[in-house]
Amino acid sequence: MRVKTFILAFLVLTLTASKNIYSQKMSEYTETCIGCHESVTPGIVAEWRKSLHSKISPSQALKKQKIKRRISAEKIPENLLKNVVGCAECHTLNPEKHKDTFEHAGLRVHTVVTPLDCAVCHPQEVRQYDENLMSKAHPNLSKNPVYHTLLSTSLGPQIFENGKLVYQETPPEVKMDACFYCHGTQVEVEGFEERETDFGKMEFPVLKGWPNQGVGRINPDGSSGSCTSCHTRHAFSVEMARKPYTCSECHKGPDVPAYKVYMVSKHGNIYLSHSGEWNFKSVPWTVGKDFTAPTCATCHASLVVDEEGNVIAERTHRFNDRLPWRIFGLIYAHPHPEKPLTTIIKNKAGLPLPTELTGEFASEYLLDEKEMEKRESRMKKICLACHSTSWVEGHFERFEKTIYETNDATFNATKIMLNAWKEGIAKDENLFDEAIEKIWVETWLFYSNSVRFSSAMAGADYGTFAFGRWYLNKSLQVLKDWYEFKRSKR
Amino acid sequence: MRVKTFILAFLVLTLTASKNIYSQKMSEYTETCIGCHESVTPGIVAEWRKSLHSKISPSQALKKQKIKRRISAEKIPENLLKNVVGCAECHTLNPEKHKDTFEHAGLRVHTVVTPLDCAVCHPQEVRQYDENLMSKAHPNLSKNPVYHTLLSTSLGPQIFENGKLVYQETPPEVKMDACFYCHGTQVEVEGFEERETDFGKMEFPVLKGWPNQGVGRINPDGSSGSCTSCHTRHAFSVEMARKPYTCSECHKGPDVPAYKVYMVSKHGNIYLSHSGEWNFKSVPWTVGKDFTAPTCATCHASLVVDEEGNVIAERTHRFNDRLPWRIFGLIYAHPHPEKPLTTIIKNKAGLPLPTELTGEFASEYLLDEKEMEKRESRMKKICLACHSTSWVEGHFERFEKTIYETNDATFNATKIMLNAWKEGIAKDENLFDEAIEKIWVETWLFYSNSVRFSSAMAGADYGTFAFGRWYLNKSLQVLKDWYEFKRSKR
Amino acid sequence: MRVKTFILAFLVLTLTASKNIYSQKMSEYTETCIGCHESVTPGIVAEWRKSLHSKISPSQALKKQKIKRRISAEKIPENLLKNVVGCAECHTLNPEKHKDTFEHAGLRVHTVVTPLDCAVCHPQEVRQYDENLMSKAHPNLSKNPVYHTLLSTSLGPQIFENGKLVYQETPPEVKMDACFYCHGTQVEVEGFEERETDFGKMEFPVLKGWPNQGVGRINPDGSSGSCTSCHTRHAFSVEMARKPYTCSECHKGPDVPAYKVYMVSKHGNIYLSHSGEWNFKSVPWTVGKDFTAPTCATCHASLVVDEEGNVIAERTHRFNDRLPWRIFGLIYAHPHPEKPLTTIIKNKAGLPLPTELTGEFASEYLLDEKEMEKRESRMKKICLACHSTSWVEGHFERFEKTIYETNDATFNATKIMLNAWKEGIAKDENLFDEAIEKIWVETWLFYSNSVRFSSAMAGADYGTFAFGRWYLNKSLQVLKDWYEFKRSKR
Repeated sequence: MRVKTFILAFLVLTLTASKNIYSQKMSEYTETCIGCHESVTPGIVAEWRKSLHSKISPSQALKKQKIKRRISAEKIPENLLKNVVGCAECHTLNPEKHKDTFEHAGLRVHTVVTPLDCAVCHPQEVRQYDENLMSKAHPNLSKNPVYHTLLSTSLGPQIFENGKLVYQETPPEVKMDACFYCHGTQVEVEGFEERETDFGKMEFPVLKGWPNQGVGRINPDGSSGSCTSCHTRHAFSVEMARKPYTCSECHKGPDVPAYKVYMVSKHGNIYLSHSGEWNFKSVPWTVGKDFTAPTCATCHASLVVDEEGNVIAERTHRFNDRLPWRIFGLIYAHPHPEKPLTTIIKNKAGLPLPTELTGEFASEYLLDEKEMEKRESRMKKICLACHSTSWVEGHFERFEKTIYETNDATFNATKIMLNAWKEGIAKDENLFDEAIEKIWVETWLFYSNSVRFSSAMAGADYGTFAFGRWYLNKSLQVLKDWYEFKRSKR
Repeated sequence: MRVKTFILAFLVLTLTASKNIYSQKMSEYTETCIGCHESVTPGIVAEWRKSLHSKISPSQALKKQKIKRRISAEKIPENLLKNVVGCAECHTLNPEKHKDTFEHAGLRVHTVVTPLDCAVCHPQEVRQYDENLMSKAHPNLSKNPVYHTLLSTSLGPQIFENGKLVYQETPPEVKMDACFYCHGTQVEVEGFEERETDFGKMEFPVLKGWPNQGVGRINPDGSSGSCTSCHTRHAFSVEMARKPYTCSECHKGPDVPAYKVYMVSKHGNIYLSHSGEWNFKSVPWTVGKDFTAPTCATCHASLVVDEEGNVIAERTHRFNDRLPWRIFGLIYAHPHPEKPLTTIIKNKAGLPLPTELTGEFASEYLLDEKEMEKRESRMKKICLACHSTSWVEGHFERFEKTIYETNDATFNATKIMLNAWKEGIAKDENLFDEAIEKIWVETWLFYSNSVRFSSAMAGADYGTFAFGRWYLNKSLQVLKDWYEFKRSKR
Repeated sequence: MRVKTFILAFLVLTLTASKNIYSQKMSEYTETCIGCHESVTPGIVAEWRKSLHSKISPSQALKKQKIKRRISAEKIPENLLKNVVGCAECHTLNPEKHKDTFEHAGLRVHTVVTPLDCAVCHPQEVRQYDENLMSKAHPNLSKNPVYHTLLSTSLGPQIFENGKLVYQETPPEVKMDACFYCHGTQVEVEGFEERETDFGKMEFPVLKGWPNQGVGRINPDGSSGSCTSCHTRHAFSVEMARKPYTCSECHKGPDVPAYKVYMVSKHGNIYLSHSGEWNFKSVPWTVGKDFTAPTCATCHASLVVDEEGNVIAERTHRFNDRLPWRIFGLIYAHPHPEKPLTTIIKNKAGLPLPTELTGEFASEYLLDEKEMEKRESRMKKICLACHSTSWVEGHFERFEKTIYETNDATFNATKIMLNAWKEGIAKDENLFDEAIEKIWVETWLFYSNSVRFSSAMAGADYGTFAFGRWYLNKSLQVLKDWYEFKRSKR
């Protein structure tokens, strides 16, 4: 008899294991949405049905033990508590703030869900993200005249007339298609238009700068940032944000080859070989049990614990919490900026740059040594979960030397350019528009950056031949020859 | 008692679930093949045993509901109906047409299975494929004198003698090893030879241009194309053809970086993060249920439906059915050619090119606006399964602007070259053989193409730094300086 | 009744299936280690617990059928027989030989576990590895003056002073961060230091050249090599070593793009599409059953059998056992060196190079034709498990032609340089330091190598546009123009 009972229990468990254990009560508003959208945009609805948002209500989430929660709000508005988080719950929040709000099926709906909307349940994450360079990625590029000149000479277009190449103003579509794809566009409501739909005529907002999901997007409610950059709608999946592919969307190019370096590092190798057996969904994330090598998220964002529940690293959405340095050299690597909005920085030469043209740090705007140490020790604590002290110290020593080494290389490349500018071989009104200047830009933007990322994550070839020191040293020699060719041609 | 029955049923189901539900009756001919080849080429036989071909006979396949069928023939020859599709079924088809037919173990066998063989069960796919640029990839390259000059100056070899670099004729093996690996070789029977085998002496055909599985292969039965390019033998797997790795074999290089762009796009990110849970085998392919982001096949080939069975996109093996533009610019992007054989095209200058050297379209040979619209709307219907109208329209508007923007860039690079050719700084007998010309080629073949693919699939960095607009604009400046260095040297 | 028994048995099997079937008795020494390290370095302990080392004792391993064994020792010291292979078993071996041995928790422990330690159970693998170029990767680079000059001009640094770029001596940290990351550092004990730990003050060795896991690492016990390069600690996983990601750590850069080529080859495509269903753990490894396409390990290292147990290829850790050629051209491709230590080679010009500067082989130090044939036939036997004879022969014929073709290209590039050196346009005291010389280096180090790897594994684009023949031919033209620019400038 007991065997039968046992078997029955086993079967019930087996058969129900794949079903989720939460209720799935939708609000009536969301039911309305889904009534039509199930057939109009079936992909969205199906993806949402697979998400945790469709399976648990905020009131259930609040009952979880604090360390296991994915929401950080202590109190959630009464009207949002009981139902799962459906279409209407997000797309009708704060309607008065959203310039893209429109009447739709009896509801006041907006298209662009923003960090301010997400903050209703996830306030801490939004607060932290707001202190993140990424949240200011749009103005940090568009409002910094030096970086904006780099942008416009990188994107063009140029026309050839009268034997000369002349740069034209970069059209907004080109910016959106390139830099602002990652940095985020400014999404503006240009008006409203009526469109024919399967359900008759309907009015919709006309958006400029759309579509976009860049990290520093300026939204129609005035907020900056986009949670969907990493937590891709409509799955909002922690799994996806923890896998390195999310970061690869913006961090794979020659300027910031973090993903490429990671993938050929020992950590990337372990990830690619074994991650099929890892648990990317558990909160908190347990080292050794859930994963055996870090992904980007492990080191830069996640709440990491050991099997006894001791916290190794706190969850943070201010991704520089564990970063003493900014190794993405523009034009030198330097202590991380103190504030996320970097347009406030002025170096001694009066330029909005974190260093002088000679490499000296604009220290007033950058982390001091004490804060750098604090952030580095947070990072090291993660390393130490799997590595001995001498391993970790040896690694960071070498890495810091690489930072100074590559800054020196940038300085020596710059010295050649200072000669060229002084002698009029290149024109210094614009530092980035001529061939010789672009060769110089690549020494720091591509090669020095590559070497630093490689050193930070031990991806040897990116420090050697793959856009590493080989190209850095070749580039210096080419720069010198180019300078001489141009000089002899005068 | 009922519990016991239930348990028994459960166990039976569990234990048999992994076995396939079809019969596995091989023809006696195939049994003969396998008798020896199980030990001679065990890998082939094992792979075939895992394929659907080994598990279902055409007569069973014909009983399926039409939308679920993988075969398109309405009638299949009686002698092929009852057995599974084994070695003999394909390798002995149409023996008289195959110049590579030889006597082997009592059968008239041929080595190279071709689209004409596959057409016995899959006629619609073969017909469609035949209207596809790919099926003519061999003559489109080898019989177009402009492209063939590009080929021979790309592949070399060159020798250095008397202070000069001189191009030599490209040996056939080099072509096979490079361009024709993807474009397809011409496979010819050079004769027959006797070889010692484990089973005594046997005669086999001697093939030229072999091995090869390029998309436009010219086969010994006179047909063009190769189904195995994507449906890799001997698994013939729809799963593999639907995954992006298949396309990466030929679409990853700097000239056509589709795969690289896809992989860092949002779609690629979702694919890499979540495809472990997708169903790549179901026919038809249901958006949301079977997959939550498109792969190459979704947008360009697959039969896609929603959960209610409504067809979102028809299956097609004419892969331009949803493509208004040909963005692979040779030398400009342009409306898609009407016919697969592009050697018939003549522009106003009399060259076999789809545009003038100035970018004007050779419209007579290209899709008209109406057909372009039709194809674009087919594509958009897929997008709309997961995206709103404003998202989709915004995306395509931007993309079309990028096409014109990159064509303008190519035009301006070409203007520099027109000067160089006129002044004799470069020789215009061959447009592709000198350093300065190769710098020009890269502006369109690598950088403009990269920017377009990036715009088409939203893979930002390939439109910016990773062989994108950065390199495009640098290349223009380098081109200009190079032109001046060479002029001053005269 | 019998049904019940059957069900019970089924349940017991189901419930225990995931548990391993071996005993897990740790030595008391290992228990001591884990007592503290479970909380000090939880990641290491958790990973080890997932490894086979934690689940089986050598005495159990010895009971396996020989072909299924992962150990090659016939006899293992009594004291190591009964317990699983834990921390203490490896980290306390041969204490007197290890200069990094220190007193720790009552044991004589060393940090760096070396091939000599692993050889206690895996002697054959260590012996074979020792005949492998990789095991000598450190001296092969550091003790060969030609290669070392290439190293130091690749890594820099250079400073710009008095209008000149001057190379400085490469600091040891830079070497460790770049070339020696893969080649292996020399790990030396600099002394011992006391550190504060969670368990009070403790003494630890201070290591130079640490951390490192390069293939030719010189260890504190005098041995060379590092098993953990591929069998990443503390999982020591055969699965990981068999997957291509392990090889990618060092074989992905432009100098040796094996991984990139593999990934876009047909084999890589099959791997990426289907490897989720393969068995990477079974020993021996059965073609067709366990895998349907080769990975790097299949062709270069693994013990491969067919389903009847016939051996197709023997396991080897001398990875050139199936390699007639060394296609990594420095500066030409050539028959594989006979001995792993290549510094013993002297060409006719007296240089430690396997060929003359004109490409002629230094045959005395290289494999003879008979041995080349033997190795090639070992490789072909693997190919023949899935391909017909004509396929395989056609492939290798083409490949050999490519070797000679790319050697010819290198020769023609070198002829331009010989002129430049003779005329003093470039200085021949150092062959690698100037821009024009670096352009020459790229013709063989990047482009000819890329073409050869592409030909060897059929990854078409790396033989065409992706650092293939396009770049090779462009580079020759650029080299010629550069030479002329420099000459006209004199």
